[in-house]
Amino acid sequence: MWLRVSCDFAFDVESPTPFIVMLRPRSGAEQWIERDEFKIAPNMSIIEFTDGYGNLCQRFVAPKGELTIYTTSDVKTSEFVDVNFGAPFVEIQHLPNDVLCYLLPSRYCESDRFNDLANTITVNKIPGYQQVQAIEDWLRYTISYIPGSSVYPTSAIEVNQKGSGVCRDLAHLGIALCRSLSIPARMVVGYLHNLKPMDMHAWFEAYVGGRWYVFDATQTGVKGGYVSVGYGLDAADVAIFNQFGPVVHTLKQHVTVTQIKN
Amino acid sequence: MWLRVSCDFAFDVESPTPFIVMLRPRSGAEQWIERDEFKIAPNMSIIEFTDGYGNLCQRFVAPKGELTIYTTSDVKTSEFVDVNFGAPFVEIQHLPNDVLCYLLPSRYCESDRFNDLANTITVNKIPGYQQVQAIEDWLRYTISYIPGSSVYPTSAIEVNQKGSGVCRDLAHLGIALCRSLSIPARMVVGYLHNLKPMDMHAWFEAYVGGRWYVFDATQTGVKGGYVSVGYGLDAADVAIFNQFGPVVHTLKQHVTVTQIKN
Amino acid sequence: MWLRVSCDFAFDVESPTPFIVMLRPRSGAEQWIERDEFKIAPNMSIIEFTDGYGNLCQRFVAPKGELTIYTTSDVKTSEFVDVNFGAPFVEIQHLPNDVLCYLLPSRYCESDRFNDLANTITVNKIPGYQQVQAIEDWLRYTISYIPGSSVYPTSAIEVNQKGSGVCRDLAHLGIALCRSLSIPARMVVGYLHNLKPMDMHAWFEAYVGGRWYVFDATQTGVKGGYVSVGYGLDAADVAIFNQFGPVVHTLKQHVTVTQIKN
Amino acid sequence: MWLRVSCDFAFDVESPTPFIVMLRPRSGAEQWIERDEFKIAPNMSIIEFTDGYGNLCQRFVAPKGELTIYTTSDVKTSEFVDVNFGAPFVEIQHLPNDVLCYLLPSRYCESDRFNDLANTITVNKIPGYQQVQAIEDWLRYTISYIPGSSVYPTSAIEVNQKGSGVCRDLAHLGIALCRSLSIPARMVVGYLHNLKPMDMHAWFEAYVGGRWYVFDATQTGVKGGYVSVGYGLDAADVAIFNQFGPVVHTLKQHVTVTQIKN
Repeated sequence: MWLRVSCDFAFDVESPTPFIVMLRPRSGAEQWIERDEFKIAPNMSIIEFTDGYGNLCQRFVAPKGELTIYTTSDVKTSEFVDVNFGAPFVEIQHLPNDVLCYLLPSRYCESDRFNDLANTITVNKIPGYQQVQAIEDWLRYTISYIPGSSVYPTSAIEVNQKGSGVCRDLAHLGIALCRSLSIPARMVVGYLHNLKPMDMHAWFEAYVGGRWYVFDATQTGVKGGYVSVGYGLDAADVAIFNQFGPVVHTLKQHVTVTQIKN
Repeated sequence: MWLRVSCDFAFDVESPTPFIVMLRPRSGAEQWIERDEFKIAPNMSIIEFTDGYGNLCQRFVAPKGELTIYTTSDVKTSEFVDVNFGAPFVEIQHLPNDVLCYLLPSRYCESDRFNDLANTITVNKIPGYQQVQAIEDWLRYTISYIPGSSVYPTSAIEVNQKGSGVCRDLAHLGIALCRSLSIPARMVVGYLHNLKPMDMHAWFEAYVGGRWYVFDATQTGVKGGYVSVGYGLDAADVAIFNQFGPVVHTLKQHVTVTQIKN
Repeated sequence: MWLRVSCDFAFDVESPTPFIVMLRPRSGAEQWIERDEFKIAPNMSIIEFTDGYGNLCQRFVAPKGELTIYTTSDVKTSEFVDVNFGAPFVEIQHLPNDVLCYLLPSRYCESDRFNDLANTITVNKIPGYQQVQAIEDWLRYTISYIPGSSVYPTSAIEVNQKGSGVCRDLAHLGIALCRSLSIPARMVVGYLHNLKPMDMHAWFEAYVGGRWYVFDATQTGVKGGYVSVGYGLDAADVAIFNQFGPVVHTLKQHVTVTQIKN
Repeated sequence: MWLRVSCDFAFDVESPTPFIVMLRPRSGAEQWIERDEFKIAPNMSIIEFTDGYGNLCQRFVAPKGELTIYTTSDVKTSEFVDVNFGAPFVEIQHLPNDVLCYLLPSRYCESDRFNDLANTITVNKIPGYQQVQAIEDWLRYTISYIPGSSVYPTSAIEVNQKGSGVCRDLAHLGIALCRSLSIPARMVVGYLHNLKPMDMHAWFEAYVGGRWYVFDATQTGVKGGYVSVGYGLDAADVAIFNQFGPVVHTLKQHVTVTQIKN
């Protein structure tokens, strides 16, 4: 399916402020970017670079005043995410070198503290996809998904204690549980077609059967329409904005996803 | 200045043919890509990757029939290229690691055979920018620039013997001469505003005074309006199309560059 | 100064166990490896790779039985680490792209929770080296350095609450405090000449004045004799051993550092 | 088999001269470096870096006087190189991204000029390993291998005209022929057990059946005992020494390869 995605953001910047932005999707294994637009005002010098996870980022110093960022892309993505109940656990020694880092605990995914819970959730499951499926199901029925309920990222331990969270929070807990079973898992931020309420979204991917699969405990049914803009260990790596210095007031944050072709 | 550049290509493909394409400009030190569109028909699976020089490339297998590729970008680039007669030669030991490869001889730039000529051309010049300027001037007055005069890349030795060539040929000879003086030099392909006749273009960059500078013996005066789509050692690395298998007939090749804003 | 460093480890492996090891130092800006030996028994297939931080790692599956790893290197390193009280804070927009990741919070360095404490510790200090020096001094006088007091990594928040820790713990807190002030900081594990008791060691580096400087709150005076074997965001990235599966009993762990030449 | 390899070089340097050296073997898919020593005198500042092909290189400025480089390694390598007559040609669209560059023509391998000869040599051969085998056989019976017969690299075209060459020359022609058939091929320099006369050696690898295979037209029979120190497109990339400036006189060049264990 072909989606047109866009972000329309405006900020009130009180003093010159360095920004790092991650909002420009790239073509990859699961999506093709046919058209892409990225407009920042006022006119300023922008440096684009690729971070250690392969994400396209922009750096600039926003001057005092209103800052607007408008980005839109036309993206070909799958109508249904791939599901493969038979995808087996990949033994550590057979993981590709560049997947190994997704086994490590990270800021918001303290996987070193979740081994007991993960074993309980996945008891009697065949190692691999079915374990991750059990984790996703457990999240869906145990952690209440409440969009807008948190502003700052919370960690897997905190989410588990609180019992509720935003999309990012559920992803953090899902990732921590997977990694505690030695299943590589990573955070993804991006867009999702028909997300309600519409906003930027976060989900996770797990590496089983020799490739990455999408999991999203905030949704039901086997839906597709995902567009990735950033990958990383957790929300620390894939902040769509990192802004340094005094608080910046958000004046507008408007996200759209529209299907333009089959 | 803001330029809108575009390529509109059509080919007649007689049997399924693998292609590797390098036609999608990236934001970099000297240009910012605000808008980008890349359309290929018929609909097929495309893999986008970054090559060893940082260029964005697309791979696909074109089926039998007509293949069209249309790409366009809105690019902010300099109205005048930087000129710095005082930029000194950088001693080998002070070159960045990733610049060293641009000292090596390559397929079409046999720099290991040009030391005498380079010394003659640059006699009494201050090492650095002024040597490269002397090389550019020598090319301009010695090698006739005849657009359309060659189809396949010719090497620096061949160009020097022939005394004429297309933009790519002049760049090859300029690069070979620079490298023979231990000045790193690289090939660039892309667009140039007001190029006559309009087509894809090629020029070279030399590393002096701690950065890359643009040189183009096919043009006179200090003009800007360059948009890069690929960098490499020579035309072997920066072919805008690499096609494998039987000959593919070009049905259309239309390039435009228009100024859209100051 | 020239140091001969070595590790002599033995483990009792109960069932075939995948290992990832980070114990082979590399030549770098601050050290030159003249000689290097890395012996693993029994004989097995080993894959060596470079991780995302540039560390040299080895992967293998240890069979049931005794596993021994012996590694030794002759290393040229500085007799005194560089100290530069005048090294200024580097504004975010001037940091190199590949240093930016060291600003992010990580598993054991929750820098997003330390802004108040960092400001208190560094009040009236000139931004840059002097802030980091104040953090190191504060650590030295506030957190008791008790070698052997913890086995598993503890995070900056936990260390701050506990008031004591091993070298790794002090480094975690130092890193979190630096990052909360937007000073890039990274974890280093390796060897230190004359460390008492002798063991593998951990310290941190902060990026000020355009380069990395060594800080180590466990030592007093301006000493050198550091040999790095791994860099990363925190102990999650720079574990000298990652072992997957059932517990492995350590039979021997013997570390030596000897000066062999001036 | 376990080999102890060593280089013992001495040069008379007339004025301070920048060097780039590629003589330190790395562990890889086909070899494991257990011990490694790299000694340069006089004492000077050395920077070690990894080039674009993954080779470990050292940069330094040799002062006036005698320069000695001594390097030795203990290496586990195969007693027999892998042979697989059934390894098929890999279609372009199935080659890994990072193998694609080995299809391109390069300084000393003008593969764009060898299509007719390659087709003649490999007529009726099954695409893949058997084509490369035919090329190796053709080289062995057509191009006389005369160690020491050339000092500077010569290109595939020149070697083909001359009908004789050193190991490097035969490799260049073999690589050019493979690439002209769209088979990725790369140059390797290193050591070979029982090479006569003993010296540094060069051979080539071709990518068929999903991996690299060793080919060496200078040897007969299926031997092993290869130790790689550098990979690249051709001799331009894998010079064991690149020295910039006035001629440096070689005083000693002594290479040894000894079997130390089975």
